[in-house]
Amino acid sequence: MNAKVWLVGAGPGDPELLTLKAVRALHEADVVMIDDLVNDAVLEHCPAARVIPVGKRGGCRSTPQAFIHRLMLRYARQGKCVVRLKGGDPCIFGRGGEEAQWLRERGVEVELVNGITAGLAGATQCDIPLTLRGVARGVTLVTAHTQDDSQLNWQALAQGGTTLVIYMGVAKLGEIRDQLLAGGMAADTPVAMIENASLAHQRECRSDLSAMAEDASAFELKSPAILVIGAVAAVVEEQKIAAFGSSCTAYGVQAL
Amino acid sequence: MNAKVWLVGAGPGDPELLTLKAVRALHEADVVMIDDLVNDAVLEHCPAARVIPVGKRGGCRSTPQAFIHRLMLRYARQGKCVVRLKGGDPCIFGRGGEEAQWLRERGVEVELVNGITAGLAGATQCDIPLTLRGVARGVTLVTAHTQDDSQLNWQALAQGGTTLVIYMGVAKLGEIRDQLLAGGMAADTPVAMIENASLAHQRECRSDLSAMAEDASAFELKSPAILVIGAVAAVVEEQKIAAFGSSCTAYGVQAL
Repeated sequence: MNAKVWLVGAGPGDPELLTLKAVRALHEADVVMIDDLVNDAVLEHCPAARVIPVGKRGGCRSTPQAFIHRLMLRYARQGKCVVRLKGGDPCIFGRGGEEAQWLRERGVEVELVNGITAGLAGATQCDIPLTLRGVARGVTLVTAHTQDDSQLNWQALAQGGTTLVIYMGVAKLGEIRDQLLAGGMAADTPVAMIENASLAHQRECRSDLSAMAEDASAFELKSPAILVIGAVAAVVEEQKIAAFGSSCTAYGVQAL
Repeated sequence: MNAKVWLVGAGPGDPELLTLKAVRALHEADVVMIDDLVNDAVLEHCPAARVIPVGKRGGCRSTPQAFIHRLMLRYARQGKCVVRLKGGDPCIFGRGGEEAQWLRERGVEVELVNGITAGLAGATQCDIPLTLRGVARGVTLVTAHTQDDSQLNWQALAQGGTTLVIYMGVAKLGEIRDQLLAGGMAADTPVAMIENASLAHQRECRSDLSAMAEDASAFELKSPAILVIGAVAAVVEEQKIAAFGSSCTAYGVQAL
């Protein structure tokens, strides 16, 4: 019996950003339950496992959470090694904490494996360091998704002095802009909006806080995307402008 | 000629948390420049490379940053493939942004590889989800290190509603406590202090905001350690107390 559930972060999309521990979990898996946002390419590490798609996306047809819970429990009780593969990291907007708790309450052994979160990988691929001495002494990751009923204090977020990385914000750009402006953030604060972070078809739209909703619309920005808001989002841009003498506010970069 | 500098995150310590891309970079390396906090075990992936320790630690004898810059440049100009191996992620308190900029200005090709940051791995090993629906809709990572002259707004951090993860804070626990209390954070806000995150000798001290400095002192908490401040730090604790009917404020957990 190797009954166990691994809650594994598959990283942001680039299959090379999988950790060695995630690869080991996949090798050991009898059953792999895979989220929508996970790149199928990582399944090369579990050729013999049974693969079950259990996608969940806001606004689309999706697998209910309770069903996912019961499925994990059923396979674990059959003595199977189950890998639940999530985009990014299981404990950063990944429900890893909830699922681990639910399974452990039912006597199932759970092991969590960290993954690279999309906000970090997307920013890095755009040459944006999330922290930078003299510019940003920290970074805040938040979700704009409203199914989470905990409160965000946008005024505090606007004034914290950290780089702001917002997940699941594409449908709420106008609202985010209004909240941050009302909270005292400068209208010309640089913004990078990054679609399909770390994948070959990553696209990137540069803007600022006041113009981001319009620029995203013109760019046809689509989910999944992350927003990076703060001075770091313009640091490399400014170097490029200094070097090439040109400026731009919104453009796409293919296969960075 | 494969002249190039890879700025690679080696993760928090557990060598299995290295990414596949980091392993590839190590395989290609002629020269590996390794930071203090990187676990030597990852060097198994570059048996033929020349390994140069370039440790930097606050308060200790360390390698000057300018020397590290020049060394990377010299090897790259000799046509060598250089891997600069950093603890955690190169762009989260890792100076990756600065080093990439400096090298690119001198015509050197640079590639950044993300790593799992210590705050995330340490929390996960203690069963603390950094975000949790209904409890914390985001997470803020900040450094308490004063060599960074950018400003932190502690009042905003105290009120943002995100889980707070503080790096390099062991020597400043009293100051952090005072700032957060003055900013309006509740005195009984749960705190987990995690030494040597993700390593076999990880140790963990649970406390709350008002008592954390005294509890850390009694626990003999040492650097490197991260602080996790927020309601998520008590969620699993509360479950354990509910299950076993006992309570505790500070204890050590070996080899989690």
